[in-house]
Order: sequence, then C-alpha cells, then structure tokens
Amino acid sequence: MVEKLWGGRFEESVSDWVEEFGASISFDQKMARQDLQGSLAHVTMLAKTGILTEAEAEKIKDGIKAVEEKYEAGQIEFTVANEDVHMNMESYLHDQIGPVAGKLHTARSRNDQVATDMHLYLRDVLHQTIEKLHTLRTTLIQISEAHIETIMPGYTHLQHAQPISFAHHLMAYYQMLTRDAERFTFNLKHTNISPLGAAALAGTTFPIDRKLTADLLDFAGPYENSLDAVSDRDFILEFLSNSSILMMHLSRFCEEIILWCSNEFKFISLSDSFSTGSSIMPQKKNPDMVELIRGKTGRVYGDLVGLLTVMKSLPLAYNKDLQEDKEGMFDAAKTILTSLDVMNGMLETMTVNKDIMEKSTKSDFSNATELADYLAAKGLPFREAHEIVGKLVLECTKQGYYLQDVPLKRYQELSNLIESDIYKYLDSKTAVGRRNSYGGTGFEAIKEQIQVAKKSLL
Amino acid sequence: MVEKLWGGRFEESVSDWVEEFGASISFDQKMARQDLQGSLAHVTMLAKTGILTEAEAEKIKDGIKAVEEKYEAGQIEFTVANEDVHMNMESYLHDQIGPVAGKLHTARSRNDQVATDMHLYLRDVLHQTIEKLHTLRTTLIQISEAHIETIMPGYTHLQHAQPISFAHHLMAYYQMLTRDAERFTFNLKHTNISPLGAAALAGTTFPIDRKLTADLLDFAGPYENSLDAVSDRDFILEFLSNSSILMMHLSRFCEEIILWCSNEFKFISLSDSFSTGSSIMPQKKNPDMVELIRGKTGRVYGDLVGLLTVMKSLPLAYNKDLQEDKEGMFDAAKTILTSLDVMNGMLETMTVNKDIMEKSTKSDFSNATELADYLAAKGLPFREAHEIVGKLVLECTKQGYYLQDVPLKRYQELSNLIESDIYKYLDSKTAVGRRNSYGGTGFEAIKEQIQVAKKSLL
Amino acid sequence: MVEKLWGGRFEESVSDWVEEFGASISFDQKMARQDLQGSLAHVTMLAKTGILTEAEAEKIKDGIKAVEEKYEAGQIEFTVANEDVHMNMESYLHDQIGPVAGKLHTARSRNDQVATDMHLYLRDVLHQTIEKLHTLRTTLIQISEAHIETIMPGYTHLQHAQPISFAHHLMAYYQMLTRDAERFTFNLKHTNISPLGAAALAGTTFPIDRKLTADLLDFAGPYENSLDAVSDRDFILEFLSNSSILMMHLSRFCEEIILWCSNEFKFISLSDSFSTGSSIMPQKKNPDMVELIRGKTGRVYGDLVGLLTVMKSLPLAYNKDLQEDKEGMFDAAKTILTSLDVMNGMLETMTVNKDIMEKSTKSDFSNATELADYLAAKGLPFREAHEIVGKLVLECTKQGYYLQDVPLKRYQELSNLIESDIYKYLDSKTAVGRRNSYGGTGFEAIKEQIQVAKKSLL
Amino acid sequence: MVEKLWGGRFEESVSDWVEEFGASISFDQKMARQDLQGSLAHVTMLAKTGILTEAEAEKIKDGIKAVEEKYEAGQIEFTVANEDVHMNMESYLHDQIGPVAGKLHTARSRNDQVATDMHLYLRDVLHQTIEKLHTLRTTLIQISEAHIETIMPGYTHLQHAQPISFAHHLMAYYQMLTRDAERFTFNLKHTNISPLGAAALAGTTFPIDRKLTADLLDFAGPYENSLDAVSDRDFILEFLSNSSILMMHLSRFCEEIILWCSNEFKFISLSDSFSTGSSIMPQKKNPDMVELIRGKTGRVYGDLVGLLTVMKSLPLAYNKDLQEDKEGMFDAAKTILTSLDVMNGMLETMTVNKDIMEKSTKSDFSNATELADYLAAKGLPFREAHEIVGKLVLECTKQGYYLQDVPLKRYQELSNLIESDIYKYLDSKTAVGRRNSYGGTGFEAIKEQIQVAKKSLL
Repeated sequence: MVEKLWGGRFEESVSDWVEEFGASISFDQKMARQDLQGSLAHVTMLAKTGILTEAEAEKIKDGIKAVEEKYEAGQIEFTVANEDVHMNMESYLHDQIGPVAGKLHTARSRNDQVATDMHLYLRDVLHQTIEKLHTLRTTLIQISEAHIETIMPGYTHLQHAQPISFAHHLMAYYQMLTRDAERFTFNLKHTNISPLGAAALAGTTFPIDRKLTADLLDFAGPYENSLDAVSDRDFILEFLSNSSILMMHLSRFCEEIILWCSNEFKFISLSDSFSTGSSIMPQKKNPDMVELIRGKTGRVYGDLVGLLTVMKSLPLAYNKDLQEDKEGMFDAAKTILTSLDVMNGMLETMTVNKDIMEKSTKSDFSNATELADYLAAKGLPFREAHEIVGKLVLECTKQGYYLQDVPLKRYQELSNLIESDIYKYLDSKTAVGRRNSYGGTGFEAIKEQIQVAKKSLL
Repeated sequence: MVEKLWGGRFEESVSDWVEEFGASISFDQKMARQDLQGSLAHVTMLAKTGILTEAEAEKIKDGIKAVEEKYEAGQIEFTVANEDVHMNMESYLHDQIGPVAGKLHTARSRNDQVATDMHLYLRDVLHQTIEKLHTLRTTLIQISEAHIETIMPGYTHLQHAQPISFAHHLMAYYQMLTRDAERFTFNLKHTNISPLGAAALAGTTFPIDRKLTADLLDFAGPYENSLDAVSDRDFILEFLSNSSILMMHLSRFCEEIILWCSNEFKFISLSDSFSTGSSIMPQKKNPDMVELIRGKTGRVYGDLVGLLTVMKSLPLAYNKDLQEDKEGMFDAAKTILTSLDVMNGMLETMTVNKDIMEKSTKSDFSNATELADYLAAKGLPFREAHEIVGKLVLECTKQGYYLQDVPLKRYQELSNLIESDIYKYLDSKTAVGRRNSYGGTGFEAIKEQIQVAKKSLL
Repeated sequence: MVEKLWGGRFEESVSDWVEEFGASISFDQKMARQDLQGSLAHVTMLAKTGILTEAEAEKIKDGIKAVEEKYEAGQIEFTVANEDVHMNMESYLHDQIGPVAGKLHTARSRNDQVATDMHLYLRDVLHQTIEKLHTLRTTLIQISEAHIETIMPGYTHLQHAQPISFAHHLMAYYQMLTRDAERFTFNLKHTNISPLGAAALAGTTFPIDRKLTADLLDFAGPYENSLDAVSDRDFILEFLSNSSILMMHLSRFCEEIILWCSNEFKFISLSDSFSTGSSIMPQKKNPDMVELIRGKTGRVYGDLVGLLTVMKSLPLAYNKDLQEDKEGMFDAAKTILTSLDVMNGMLETMTVNKDIMEKSTKSDFSNATELADYLAAKGLPFREAHEIVGKLVLECTKQGYYLQDVPLKRYQELSNLIESDIYKYLDSKTAVGRRNSYGGTGFEAIKEQIQVAKKSLL
Repeated sequence: MVEKLWGGRFEESVSDWVEEFGASISFDQKMARQDLQGSLAHVTMLAKTGILTEAEAEKIKDGIKAVEEKYEAGQIEFTVANEDVHMNMESYLHDQIGPVAGKLHTARSRNDQVATDMHLYLRDVLHQTIEKLHTLRTTLIQISEAHIETIMPGYTHLQHAQPISFAHHLMAYYQMLTRDAERFTFNLKHTNISPLGAAALAGTTFPIDRKLTADLLDFAGPYENSLDAVSDRDFILEFLSNSSILMMHLSRFCEEIILWCSNEFKFISLSDSFSTGSSIMPQKKNPDMVELIRGKTGRVYGDLVGLLTVMKSLPLAYNKDLQEDKEGMFDAAKTILTSLDVMNGMLETMTVNKDIMEKSTKSDFSNATELADYLAAKGLPFREAHEIVGKLVLECTKQGYYLQDVPLKRYQELSNLIESDIYKYLDSKTAVGRRNSYGGTGFEAIKEQIQVAKKSLL
C-alpha cells in the first residue's frame, strides 16, 4: 500500500474496496492540467513571498513541468492508492525531485486546491460553451436570411394559429440561445475568482500573496472569505442550471424537428449523416441525433438536482459530500458541448421543404384572424368580428372547405363590410407580410430583427 | 353560464368540473394589479397610434381605474366561469363601461397579456428579494462586527479543524448572500422586457407601438421576437434556480444553527419568539423556524424541477402546459421572501454563548495545525511535521489530554526545534489572530473583509 | 393571543407573522375528519385500558362527535393562533366539554397524531385512485373492443414503422395503467399501518393498547418501532413516486392525443367539452385539457423532488421540516384524481377518424418489413432481405411512389423469390392481421389480450 | 468504416463524432452477458418452432458460446462503429460462424432485445440489493441485541426529548431497511417479465413462442402487449425511486453517525478503516465514508429525475431518447450496492461509547416528560402537569441545575402529589425501562421487537 500523506494519526489502513469507494481519481484526473497549473502559480508565489527559497521553487517548478510533459505524453498512470488527482500529481513530483516536493504543499490544503482546479476547469468550459453558442446562433441567422419569405403555419396548442415566416420561427431560437450565452457569460463572474490560499478553511499564518496567485492564474481576484472559498459550489450550480435551461431550449427545438421530419409534417428532411436506420425495418430513417439531444435533457436536469441535493443543509466548511460535485459537472459539460455541435451540424445540412410548408398554410383556418382583423379594421368591435368568424369556421368545417373558398355572396350575407379584396387578405403570404409590428413575423420586421441580431453577434 | 369570449366556433359547452380543471383564476388573480396596469398602458398606446379614438381610450381608461378601485377595495369577485384573471377583469370592465370594453383587446392576445403580467409581477418580487437580502446582509455585518474576537471551532467533516472567529463564519454567509443578490439582479435583465404587442404569436397588422408600451410599463424595451415573447419562461426558471441556490444557502445556515442550539453544542440560544415547544415534553424549546426554512428548501427545489419538466420539449408557441408556470413562481416567491424575514429576525434576537464557543476550542486538537506550522516555519518539511504531530495526537488521545497539556520535555524529545513559546502558539485565540492571509480568519483580515463588505453594501 | 398548549417554559410570545410562518392550519385542515377519527379511536382505547374512566371517555367521545357535526356543517373556523389541525380541534373540544378535553392527549403526542392523520388520509386517496384507474382501464377496453380492426401507423422515432391496430395502441396504455394500479395497491401496505401510540418518539409508560387503536381505525396493525413510526414518510414518497410514474404515462398519452388532433394528423377529434378556443383566433379549438395534464406532470415530479429533499439527511425523530410533507401530497392527490377523471371523460367523448388513420398507412413505407419478412420466409437471410428492401425504398422515394406501386417486373428483377401475391402481403390491413405472435397487433392476438384484461379487471 | 446493419436505405455515412455521440457501446457493454443469454434463448426457440432448422440453431448456439468464452476471457474489443452491445456481439458471432449469424435476428428487433437485456440485468441487481439489505439488517439486529440497555438521548428537533435505548434507535433503521427490501422485492414483479418477441413494436408474423423464451430466461411470463413491451421503462423508474428512498434512509443514518462522531457528541468512534485524515491538519480523523454516502444521495435522486424527464411526454413506441435509460440505472445500482457494503462494514467495526451516551441523558431535561407523566398518573390533567413542569424547567435553566437536582421541598411546593420516589422516576435508565408500550423503547418492548425482526429475517 502506498503511504497516505495524512497517515500519522492512523493505526489501521483502509481496505482496498473502501479505498476505492472513497477515491476520486477515476474522474478528477480530468483536471490534471489545472492541478499542475495551480501548483505552478502557488510555488511561484511561495518564492516571491520568501516562504520558499528561489532555489527550492525552481526545483519544484522544473519538476512540475517535467510531470506536465509526462502527462501530455500519456505517461502518467493514476492509482487509486493515491486517492485523487492532487496526491497522484504530488507523488509523481516526489519521484521526480525528491523530498523538496513536500514543500509545495506549504500554506495550502487539498480543500483550496481542488476548488482552484474546478474554477479553472469550469472557466474553460464556459468559454467553449459561449463560443459554440456563437457558432450556432450564426448558423441560425444564415438559415433565417435564406428563409425570410418561406411561409409555414405558426402553432399554438399544436394547432395552426397564424401563418408565419420560417425565419421568424428560427429567430425565436436565436433569441433563446442569446439569453443562454448571456447566462453563461454571467456565470464567469462567480467562476473566475481564486480560492487558492484559503488553505483548509481559515487562511494561513504564512505571509502568502493571494492576489498574486489570482493574477498568475488570470482570475479576477481572490475570494473574500476563506471559509466561503472552500465551501462554495454556486459557480457549478449556476452552470448546471444554465445548462438545464439550454438543454430545455434544445429539447423544444428537437421536438419540433422530430415533428417536422414525420410523415405527417414532412416540413424538413435531415441529412443521412444525422439519421440512422433500423435493424428490422428497412425503410426507416430516424432523426436519432435530435431525439438523443432531447433525451439528454434528462441527464442534465438530473445533474442539477444531484448537486442541489448534495449541498442541501451541508454545514461549513469542506465535507466529503462535496466530492460529488465533479461528475455531474463533467457530464453536463460534455453533454452541452457535444449537443451544440450536433445541432449545428444538423441544421447546416437539413433540407427545408418550402413548398410543403407553405401548402400547409393553405389547407387550414390559420387565416381566420385575418378575417377578424379585416372586420375590426373596418370598425366592427373585435369581439363581434371574432364571433362572426368563429361561426363561419364551424360552417366551413362541416362543409369541408376553407375561408378562401367561401363565395363573396356568403361573405356579404355575413357582413356588408366585406368586399372582394378579402381574398387577397386571406392569402397566407400576404398575411405574413403584413405583420410588421416590432418583433412580428412581417418580412420587414424580420429583416430588422436579423440586422439587430447580426450586430449583437459581432 | 357566462358566455366565453371565444365561443363562436363551439357547439357544446364545457362542463363545470372540466372548466374548473382548466381555469387559472384561483391563482392568477394574484396578478390582478399587473393585469390592469398592462391594460392601461395598452389602451394609452392604442390611442396614441390612432387605433382607438381618444374618446374610446378615455372611456376605457376610466373604466380600468374604476375596476382597480373596486379591486383595491376588495369588491371584486373572481369566477371560474371567467377562467382567468384577464377575462375576469375584462368582464368587470364590460359591466363598467359597456361594449367599448371589447376594443381594449384589439391588437393583443391573452398570450402576450399573461406574459406581460408575469414579467411585471416577477420584477416586483425581484426588487423585494434584493432589498430583503440587503437587510439580512446588513444584519450579518453588524453581528460580525460585534464578534470579531469571538473564538469558535472551525469545522471540516463536522470535526474540529482549526479555531476561527465567529465573525469569519458569519461573513462566509454574507458572501453567499451577496452572490444571491447579484444573481437576482442579473435575473432582472431577462425579466424587465416587454412581451406586450407580440399578440397571439406573430405580432399584428395594427400599427402598434411596442416601445411605447414598454416605456409606459418601465420595461427596458420590447422582446425582439414575438414567438419568443409568448413562449419564453427563462426569466421564471432563472428565478426558481436563483431561489433554489438561496434556499440551499439558508438550509446550510439553518443546519448549523440547529446544531448550535443542541444540548451538545450550546453555542447559541434562540429567542423564545423564534422557538416553539412540545405538546408532550414540557422542557422542549425547539428551533422550529429554522428547521422549517431548512425544510422549505425542498418545495423550492420542487418548484424548479416542476417548471423545467413543464418546459421540456414543448413546441412553440403558447401551449396550455404553460399555465403551470405560475403556482411554482408564487410559491417560491412567498417562501424566499418570508424565509429572509425570519432569518433576519432570528439572527437579530439570538444570544451568542461566547464562552462556550471558545471553551470548545480548548478541549480539542484543532491547534494541531499550529504545531505543524510551528515546525514547518522552523524549517522542517511540512510532510514530516505533519507526521510527527499526527503521532502525538494519537498518543494524547490514548492518554486523555490535549496538545497544550503535553510537557515541554516530551515536546523536545519529539523535536529539538520546539521551545517554550509553543504554548502561546497553541492557544486558540492567538492561533486565530495570526491567520491574516487575505480572506483569512485573523482579526485584521476580518476587519478588512468587513470594511470591503460595508462599502459594497452602500 | 390564544395560549399555547406548550407555553409553560416560554417567556416571550411569538410574533404574529412568525406564528403564521410556522403554522400548518392553512393546509392541514384538510385532515380534520381524520384527526377526529383518530381521537375517537384513541379515547375508546384509553377507556378500555382503564387509563381514563368510562365516564371521562364518554364525555370526550360525545364532545368529538359534536365537533364533527359542527365541522360537517361548516361551522368550524380554523385559527392560525391554534397552529395546526390538532390544536384547533382540541380547542373546539375544550369549548364543548371543558377541562376534561385535556385528558384526550394522555399517552399521545402531536407527532404520532399527525402521522396517524396522514396515514388515514392517504389510505383514502389510494382507494380513490385505484377506483378511478379501474374506470379508465374499463373505458380503454371498451374503446379497444370497438377498434380492433381500425388500422393506424405504428411509430418508432415518430416515423411510420409498421401498421398496427388502434386497439393495440390503446391496450398498451391499459397495461401501463394496470401497473399503476398495482403500484398504488402495494402502496397501501406501508400506508395502512398505525403510528398511534408511538407518542413523541419513545412510546409511553401508560398501558396503552396499540393493536386496539389500529383495529378501530381499520389499520393492518401498529408500527413495530415508535421512533420509526413518527419519522417515517416512506408511504408518502411511494405515493409521490407512483403518482409521478402515472403522470408520466398520462403525459405520453396526452402528447399523442395532441399530435392526433393536429391538422397534420387529424386522427381524432375531441369533444367541444374538452376543448377551448382563443380570444384572438376565431378558428381555434385547442386540446387544452390534455395539454394541461401533460403540463401537470411537472408539478407532481416537483412534489416528489420536494419531499425527497426534505427527508435527505434528516436526523430522527420528528423535525419541523416534516411539516413540509403535506402540501405536496395534497397537491399530487388532487392532480392525479382530477387528471384521471378528465382523461376518462375525454376518451369517452372523442371521435376516432378511422379512415384518415388507415389511409395514412397507405401513403408510407410502413410495409417495408412485410417485404423483408416475405423474402426471409422464403429463405433469404434476413440481413440480405433488409438490404434489398432498403435500397428499393430509396429508389421509390426518389421516384415518388410506394412499395405497393412497384411493378411486379421490377420486383422480380430484385429477387426471383417475389411473386404476385406480394401485393396482398403489402396491404396494411392484412399486414396487421398477420402479426399474431403473443401480445402482437394481429386481430386474434388483440382479442386474446382484451379477454385477459377483462378477466383481470373483474 | 464498419458497414451498418441498417445501411441499405442510406447514401451518406455518419461522420465519426456524430457516430460516437449516438453510440451506446461505451456503457451498454455492461450487459454483454445478458445479451448473449437472450440470444441463446431466442435461437433455441427459433429451432423449437421450426423457424430455423436444428442445424442452423446448433451452429448459432455454438457460436454464441464461443463468443461468451471470449468475453469472459476478456478477448472482446467493443467498437463504436458497431454502435451498441447487440451489434458488437452479432459482429463477433458473424466472425465466428459466418453468414448464418444473420439468421439469429429473425423475428426480433433491437427494440425488444435491449429491453430484454435490461430486464435481465436489473433482475440480477435487485437480487443482489435484497441480499445486501439482508446482511445489513442482520448486522443491525446483532448490534441492537448488544445494546438493549445502552441509554442515549432520543431527539426531536435535535433537542433532547426523552431518553431511549440505543437498540431502539438502531431498530428504527432496521424497519426502514425492511421496507426497502419489500419495495425491491415488489420491483421484481415488473422486472421479471419478458419483452422478447415484441419485435420492433408490433409483434411478428413468424410463429414464435414467447412463453418458451420467457421460460428459458426464467421470466414469469411475456409482456401482454408488444407496444408496451418496448416502450415500458417503469421497472427502471421503480428501481430508481426505491433506490432514492433507500439512499434517503442511509443519508439520515449517515447524518446521525457524523453527528455522533463529532467532538460535541462523541457517542461513537469509527474504525480507522472507515475514516481518513487531512493533508494539512494532522489531528483529523474524518468520517469520510459516511459523508460520501450521504452525498451520493444526490446522484441517485438525480438519476431518478433524469429518467422521469426522459420519459415525460414521449410518444410510443421506441424513441432514441430511451437510450438515456441505462447510465442512470447502472450508476444507481453501483451506488446502492457499494453503499450498503460500506454501511455494513462501518457498523460492524464502530465503537459505541456507552458511558458518554448515558451521561448525556443526565445533563439535560429529557426526563421532563417523566415528571409530567408522574403527575398525570396521580390524576392531574396532563395539560396542567405540562404547565407546571414547563415552568420548573425554566427555573432550573436560570439557576443552572437539572430536575434530578431539585430539592424535594421545592417539588412539594409545586404539587403535593410529588413524593420522594420521584428521583427514581427521573433516572434515565428507569425512564427508558418503563416505556413498554408496543414498539416503545422499554427493554421488554425492544426485546420483543428484535424477536419479531429475527423471525421475519429468516
């Protein structure tokens, strides 16, 4: 058995399976790079403040760099006996440079060390997420620009409500993703601060310089309170919550894409590269990737609930429960980053069946509001117009035709406000084109929306 | 039965119990004020843009104000037959001013109306939350100032780790609540925007002015996309997520207070006003209020999971599922606002048993790090110092005394680096006082921390 | 202020708003009947065991019955000052019969009293739930019997997979609801036991007879351990978990009904009684009720998460956190009971558009497996048959026709195993009819399935 | 690239990273054994029913066994190109026996195949869980038997309430774990049924015998409805819900153990084998393992929420979202099985500090109920007795002594019912010993409880 760094007080050793239960190395090794980066900053500071001599510090730094090279070359083997990434790294450092390695841990604890690693790790994930959101938002704008005049049914309650522009629909997702990006950017605020130097919980008697280590690691500054620094997991909860909202958005988009790919809708076709088949039904072309993203919403919600549960009523400062903060974060990070890539690739390669979309707005009653607005614009109180049109829709349904098929004569029986221009009014494309209120689906309104979006993306 | 405003197309009426299942009036009446406020802005705009005549608008405005007065006087009776707050209000308006009331609904839909109400409502809740957080943070600073030199055991793993200042412990919660305040402030960004004028989903053909209604309602501006405006519930999810994190913080604090009130700790005593007794055990004085806050963490987590579930894979735009967004928001709002009040009152009236706290740091081994640091400062590698102290602790445990009781002779057998100044070093108060690294528990460090906090609070 | 029953030890009174925060009477009054029922059993036992005299017991019983009558007549006013349902009831009892009322609380505590109330309450809810599930399952069988030969597309990945019988589809939901009923029945096991007599936590020195009170309340028996009796909330967690699974099933069914009601599917039409309209779009007929049930899945999941969170790491025995166990239970109970009613009414009144469903199976490739099976049955390895059919589907897609439109000549070019009987084989109705493997969609298989179901329902 | 088994209909291939996103082999390989077991049963049936010839079947069976041997010898390499465990296994089979391997997939689909694998897998996990619960319950009984007369404070609200037996406290956990075992046993009902032969969703035209395959796999029988068979994940949700409740129980136990290990309580000491130290604080002996179990409650709750979310409003039958059902199940299974082992080992090796526990019941007011009961037993209405004792406790608190220290004279001033036997009455051990109501903490009551438990365990 490898000797524990904390073994002095103990008489019996932990048996192997219990050791494995407690060890975190199987997952926290993902933060090996961050751990070395933090150690480098720490030792630099220890020398600057005279806590270590320059010579000691140089030796340790060279050692860290040597370990880093080994790591990048895939020559590090992590062991459960060394529990976690910190002790695994320190053990390699010890092999490299001997007992002086022991001085690296002066004025720090694994409590502030692991917190530092996580802040560094998540900061990187946040930057990647924001970048991938940028890519996806750019793609949405590009497709929108090509589809300003592509007409589709707008739905409420999954019933045809009013015809809209396909670009308008896509730009709604653009807005959601923009809010996502803003949330992940805000998330940086509570991530980009340094716990290093909080030590076990109370700070230290050594004359350390926490602002220096914060600077060296490009953090905005140190945590104000050492107890808080080692107990805080807000930054991860924010990330999991933001990820949950993002996945919720993607799940809505995926749901619509799945509908649009169905035989009943046929609004779009996905590229073969984003579809799979069936081992038994030869005709199947399944939108597997979007279904999977929709499904993965579950795991991210679960990651959020998991950490919220861990943190509930946990006394300060570090408790071993906190070790459970990592796997959920890693899982959510991987899930959102890949899902964003898949969404982007899928959108870039999908085919939009414009004709089917537009045709669908001509065999429905989604122009009923047009008729009501037509009457209201001519002075009829809206509530009365609504009543007349509702009854006419019922009449049409029973006889099997649509509003554009109603003869002018019948219209004029219903209201003498109706004239022959009504048919133009009822056409879905002109209906869409007219809705130019700010943020509306009218072609001019959408163009403006896209211009605003493009500017904000730069 | 009251006639539905959408009844034209229907032949059969909804039976009473189904109607009740679908109605939201039992809870959305909480937004009556906001609904009237939104209507007032809408009709003002309809007149400014010439969609209604000034005379019509004036009549409607007078009507709205009359209904508002009735509401404030408690003279409004809400009915399930009128489904929701919007139709209840409109029905009263109709009673007040007759058919012209029907013109108020020109160029809007219940979809953008309800979204507007919720944005107004939550904005108000956010302001209250931030204010109550300010009060609680102020209280924490005040108590901290009085307890800079109050010594208590600092814990990790609920084991005595190192002695700390009670002020330091309280200030850790100050930091958490500060982040909470920052999150609720950021929450305003996506709350303080106006969906009004998005209409059903697609905008409208009427020449409305959404920027004007946004201004009248003190919103930063209108939503950029009408489909998004009626489908978006991010602002509520942010609120529920922020509330969950806040309750998590409070649950940690409550857990500690419950521990501190126990017979085993006795660190504090709560005021009778924040305690209750037992119907069977006459001696009981239970910290009921803090337990209840700890328990209420569950309902807020549940509210968050509830809405995340509702939103998962919901196609655009409005679906009736979205009606389920309100009760969780109301519940979380009430829970956090009251919990903040209770926490504040409880802290203001609690008694801190300073002597018991400090005594507790003298019958433990929480000064073991002092000894190790003492040796390390004299040049012994930290890992070796750690080993020596660990063994000595084991020896003491077996013989039933503490480090401060070890004779100098025994110390010098262990290491000739140890001199008679060691006993001063091991005293918990001097140990705390020395930890003046930035953010540490040392008295100077805490004073600085409190100064920074006070400035940021202004 | 009403004097507290536990006030002896206290010097200051709780202020009103704190009192309201702590009080449960606003919701636990739902259990007033159960509270009286439990008290009646308790006092009967106290007399039987000689702890009270017969005369005392009679007086108390008469008093309880009088309070019960008042309650049923709506003459009870609950007050926050009396905190909870137990003290409100006892206060009324005191008004009714004077000081002897105080003897009712001998040998019990509010801890076992509230647990008893909840067991009684939930037992009743479970019985109702099982009954309503029985009704809904009966309805499904009835509709299924009428639709054995109604053909519709079976889906996987929301893509047409293979044609199936509509009865088969409905019977899948029957199976889910049967499992639900089995779960709620198992739920009775841990609900139908009596905590009464556990007292505060440790049992009592009085010679009570817990088996007698259990009998009087129709419980299967008393809890074996008094500490467990007052700390256990498993029976509620089981209920919330079972309710979550039930709502999940309903949400799947609702999702499908929403799809089937869409313009694109048109497989069914809902009765006007289960639909609503739009205040702006006169043509709308929205499947509001099923959307709402789908949405309500969220609140029940939230109730489950809420209580799981409350219970997490709560020390024994009673803690005030446990007061948070009730509202979620009430909410879930109301939600599932009403949702079951609505589902049943909705199904009973819906119209099935058989022709549209069947037609939908003739303009797709859902008969591709038939062709592959045809070839496999003639000896071609299945993997090869699959390959041939896959390529043919691609060919058809490009040329815009279906497998039933492929000329025999082309078929025979692909494989000389194909003969003219292939067209009969490809017909969706005969395809469905042939799948008579156990549990399959074949007409005979479904009939058998329905017979089995009918027997198990009796 | 490996050729897909469903490639016929496709023109473009899936790019590598998308393929990896969609593949499940990285985790579903855990079910390799079950997959082979299912295939063996399937091919046996195919031969019995004449769908394959005996010769074909023998060849396939031999192949399966050969692959199984390779698997057990660790010679199988799984590839992402082969997507999942089913296709990886089939590919090896193909390598082993050539094209006849293709006949194995006759009359089944991956949809029923994966469902079968999961049922087999979970059945095994359930059996292991029930067994480990049995072990832990046995340990609890053994420790309880040794501690019937070990006195400790019983708590409500974490305040000393009444003294109890330590055995009584442990047996409360025994009861919880017994309910857990009953739930996992019920879980078998919906797990131990066979989906095999449901094929893609609709059953098959081949004359398969589903009862035979069910028998061969030791299932109680086949699913009644093929659509349900491939869509159902109730059995996993039941497992995750049961696991959540189990972890909740363990988290409560762990919380108490953590408290008991603290310096303030010192009720127990854990073995070094179940504790760890600190890298900075040499004195630390942390109850890491129990903290970790408490923390792992979070991940299991998260797994439950994850799958509930996945299933919410998912249309029938198989959708790719369902692939997300596995990792949570594996994770929860591993977590509960190991946690049960750790709990058991920890309990078996802990030291109970009886003297400290008992002493703690003598420096508190937990005998206040005794005094009240003493007075009530002598005829004073309980409410009056409660009042007198409450005031006396307050008096004692102010003067710094306990009830057993109050002079008889003072007692008799308060009530002339009090005699000199009161001091015996107030002793914690006699107080515990007297509470022999059924399920109470009295020594006789506990002995009976343990006897009942022992019998039910056999």
